[in-house]
Amino acid sequence: MYRTHTCGELRIENVGQEIVLSGWIQAIRNLGGMTFVTLRDRYGLTQIVFDENTPEKLKLKAGELGREFVIRIAGNVIERSSKNPKMPTGEIEIIISELDVLSKSEIPPFTIEDDTDGGDELRMKYRYLDLRRNPVRENLELRHKMGQEIRKYLDGEKFMEIETPYLIKSTPEGARDFVVPSRMNPGEFYALPQSPQTFKQLLMVSGFDRYFQIVKCFRYEDLRADRQPEFTQIDCEMSFVGQEDVLNTFEGLAKYLFKEIKGLSFDGSFPRITYDDAIKYYGSDKPDLRFGMKLVELTEIVQGKGFKVFDSVEYIGGINAEGCAEYSRKQLDELTAFVQKPQVGAKGLVYVKYNQDGSFKSSVDKFYGQEGLKLWAESMNAKPGDLLLVLAGNKKDTLNALNVLRLEIGDRLGLRDKDKFAPCWIVDFPLLEWNEEEKNFFAMHHPFTSPKDEDITLFETNPGEMRANAYDFVINGVEIGGGSIRIFNAELQQKMFTALGISKEETEEKFGFLLDAFKYGAPPHGGIAFGFDRWCSVFGGSESIRDYIAFPKNNAGRDIMINSPSEIGQKQLKELFLSIKK
Amino acid sequence: MYRTHTCGELRIENVGQEIVLSGWIQAIRNLGGMTFVTLRDRYGLTQIVFDENTPEKLKLKAGELGREFVIRIAGNVIERSSKNPKMPTGEIEIIISELDVLSKSEIPPFTIEDDTDGGDELRMKYRYLDLRRNPVRENLELRHKMGQEIRKYLDGEKFMEIETPYLIKSTPEGARDFVVPSRMNPGEFYALPQSPQTFKQLLMVSGFDRYFQIVKCFRYEDLRADRQPEFTQIDCEMSFVGQEDVLNTFEGLAKYLFKEIKGLSFDGSFPRITYDDAIKYYGSDKPDLRFGMKLVELTEIVQGKGFKVFDSVEYIGGINAEGCAEYSRKQLDELTAFVQKPQVGAKGLVYVKYNQDGSFKSSVDKFYGQEGLKLWAESMNAKPGDLLLVLAGNKKDTLNALNVLRLEIGDRLGLRDKDKFAPCWIVDFPLLEWNEEEKNFFAMHHPFTSPKDEDITLFETNPGEMRANAYDFVINGVEIGGGSIRIFNAELQQKMFTALGISKEETEEKFGFLLDAFKYGAPPHGGIAFGFDRWCSVFGGSESIRDYIAFPKNNAGRDIMINSPSEIGQKQLKELFLSIKK
Repeated sequence: MYRTHTCGELRIENVGQEIVLSGWIQAIRNLGGMTFVTLRDRYGLTQIVFDENTPEKLKLKAGELGREFVIRIAGNVIERSSKNPKMPTGEIEIIISELDVLSKSEIPPFTIEDDTDGGDELRMKYRYLDLRRNPVRENLELRHKMGQEIRKYLDGEKFMEIETPYLIKSTPEGARDFVVPSRMNPGEFYALPQSPQTFKQLLMVSGFDRYFQIVKCFRYEDLRADRQPEFTQIDCEMSFVGQEDVLNTFEGLAKYLFKEIKGLSFDGSFPRITYDDAIKYYGSDKPDLRFGMKLVELTEIVQGKGFKVFDSVEYIGGINAEGCAEYSRKQLDELTAFVQKPQVGAKGLVYVKYNQDGSFKSSVDKFYGQEGLKLWAESMNAKPGDLLLVLAGNKKDTLNALNVLRLEIGDRLGLRDKDKFAPCWIVDFPLLEWNEEEKNFFAMHHPFTSPKDEDITLFETNPGEMRANAYDFVINGVEIGGGSIRIFNAELQQKMFTALGISKEETEEKFGFLLDAFKYGAPPHGGIAFGFDRWCSVFGGSESIRDYIAFPKNNAGRDIMINSPSEIGQKQLKELFLSIKK
Repeated sequence: MYRTHTCGELRIENVGQEIVLSGWIQAIRNLGGMTFVTLRDRYGLTQIVFDENTPEKLKLKAGELGREFVIRIAGNVIERSSKNPKMPTGEIEIIISELDVLSKSEIPPFTIEDDTDGGDELRMKYRYLDLRRNPVRENLELRHKMGQEIRKYLDGEKFMEIETPYLIKSTPEGARDFVVPSRMNPGEFYALPQSPQTFKQLLMVSGFDRYFQIVKCFRYEDLRADRQPEFTQIDCEMSFVGQEDVLNTFEGLAKYLFKEIKGLSFDGSFPRITYDDAIKYYGSDKPDLRFGMKLVELTEIVQGKGFKVFDSVEYIGGINAEGCAEYSRKQLDELTAFVQKPQVGAKGLVYVKYNQDGSFKSSVDKFYGQEGLKLWAESMNAKPGDLLLVLAGNKKDTLNALNVLRLEIGDRLGLRDKDKFAPCWIVDFPLLEWNEEEKNFFAMHHPFTSPKDEDITLFETNPGEMRANAYDFVINGVEIGGGSIRIFNAELQQKMFTALGISKEETEEKFGFLLDAFKYGAPPHGGIAFGFDRWCSVFGGSESIRDYIAFPKNNAGRDIMINSPSEIGQKQLKELFLSIKK
């Protein structure tokens, strides 16, 4: 038998028992006559003691042990003389009587400690060793727990988990599909799903009423730090619902998870913010609501005062950095440099200090007197001691720059506490987005999203103005999920495809089955998909989804541990009817 | 609002309430002044009534309704005068006051009834309509419930569900891999996992101790009726365990599922049968234990009596078809024809009737007198009224033919009741299997399976005789799962690869990461993988796993509903650095 207990289990009540443990050697301390071995498994740590009474043979064996060896020991539980209150097993230790080395270990390439000395690359190459570290294991424990709780909640709400296929058909956004050559159908390919969207809609047509699935999805795109070619969605769909039904149902899920996982309760509904308001007040459709500091537009009150920089632009707006009037020249220069970075893209930064004595000091004193600046301060609800930061330019870019600046100031003021959670819904998204390069509309959410009833007539007159029955779920400025009420009518769906410039032939080829299905009685339906990796990372307080994936890929889409992707043999290529053309 | 209740919900207590329902029209009956509409959703059926008091406008609308239209109705719940005890809502009906057609339906290509008139092909093409039928929906409900219960049980046993990657590396059995061309790494491919085997072993090296995952796996092979290119496994692995630990843990899971899903309890442990015994007594490593009728070898007692057919063969064996002595000439001829079918492959069938009067009548009376046949009967535990069926030939093929014959007789005698369940473990499998064509050993389970400790020395002398720490879980003659205690030592693993004729280079290329991992302290570990689709089908009493998959593929690996696989564009091929060579 390998063990009677785990390494996290023994307590003062177990004193006197003969036990068997197995695990990894975390540490060995040799103090002259005594040797202490800390044994580790998933459940905890236990101290093993070799003392003066330990048989010589065991002591000799102990000399050959090393870090990360896997051993099995038998021994007697005794009370520790110097207890360790930080360790759950810290009241006891084991006087060893048997020792078997189950596996030796070479010296690991980095230390298996909470704070390791291993760099990113090295830890990815030896991911199986990185996974031994407590913080990484705890991330996956959180993920496991979230998965179980999500299923428990949705099962309780009568959602059925139904598996949809992985080998499907390439879609119009096919450029981002992973494809899979068929061996039995020469020259033909499957595609891996970017999402189970069409299948879950078919399940609604089938009458399944409430569906969910925690499912891998695949998307080939330029990988950023927080993107992975394969990622996991909590995919959900419901029939006979409107937008509020969906929002309320999944607000229920979110509240359940906040309660079960984070121990947090929320009074009332999560805020629902229209897309227009989100852009207006936060410069972003995923606002971080852990703090206020709303954007204020100043265009009207600041233009026409002779300041050419302002007079020549579309939009001027600012934020109020409360209590920051004492910022030094250096700090203000830093902020100016920050907003001028290419990824922020502002031309410059105008500041106004609202001094404690009620006077104003600004970088535009030449154009705006004390009275003028007072107007600014009033618009922005500022009080003495506050600092106003103002940007100008075209509306879209300036709002975006203000968003970034707001988050930066939020960080500097410690307003973005990772233990605080501010969830919200963003609603009333535009249906279509104009792509200037391709001179074409794109679906802002996806082509199956329904327009607001009252906007449908705009298809003919002003498609860009249509609003969608689409919504995003945002926590702390991170988009956790998004969904929509779907089109469930073949005609309207065809209209949508036309607006997107997808030809009848392509529609038929790619989505014929869905339009066919709509001919046989489709219910009104809608749903949502959450990014499971991202939700875990937000709950875990990390910026990177990679920390919540057991075996992630790097930025080039490679798994450097198994060295994949890799070449395949000519025989295999031939069987797939393929040849390589580099 | 689309509904206040579902179509399966209303009872006599609801009489008098104003309610709203939505659903599909299952049936319309027009009885002169009255029209009855049966409304269906996932939860049940409710009868809607248009009577003489119904406003003319609604009656007109009713005339335009058809089967499978999706409608929303409002109305008042009344008690039915003629109740339908077969329907949970059969005590009430709804007097309609509002009617909205949400979606029209064309006439479906087959009837949406429990017994449909649609053929296989048609139902697959319109799978979304087939899924509306009760028996198909109930199959997926069973699957959903099994999935939730499996997770509940394993979570309770401290197993962690950890997702392993789908885009992995091609393996030596790569001929059966689905591959995925990489766009960012020209000429390179990922492979889809045939199973997460190596990853779950790495998780054990990482110390996760107990892992599971309900996960899609992919295998390109000649598709048979009960195979799918993508299928779902319940994949499990544990550390610090021996074979009995694994068997007991998952026997716990099986008993839990039997109890929760089928309401069945089992006393004591499931039978554990060695591979050798299974072959000897059932001619199969997946015996159907719902009935006895064990195979009996007769070689010794029947040879040397002058019957050349028997004297010239390796093996003679038979089964006792109890109570079948009255089988007619025609029935015996049928059985003879049955065993002579190419897929059974016997040359002929010898029978012995043990008549009620104690005499024997056989097809080999010429060679074996009454005394001789009595010996047969004694060996086979026969009593008057029984029929002995005997086959002869080479041992392997004859045992297999007897297995098929035994199942056939079991069917004829009604001994294979689909509501009866006889689970068992098959243990002590051979480690290696000789492939005469390729003159090579193959791993009977897989190359990571450990040999029995006492057999390890046979690597050098007689590898074919080695037994493995491998086991299968079988219910009613169907293999539900299989697993093994793994090798956890790089040297032994290398020995195994060598025995399988896998070169050092190939080993390094394909499994270097696993052998590397074993250098840093690997725990003893083992596990099992269950075929989830198959387990569902056995619990559901069906022979086909397809009935338990929402969107299955056909025998050519095609999804005929979405028409996949399909061709992709030249642009896409170019981006993948590929060209087609048919």
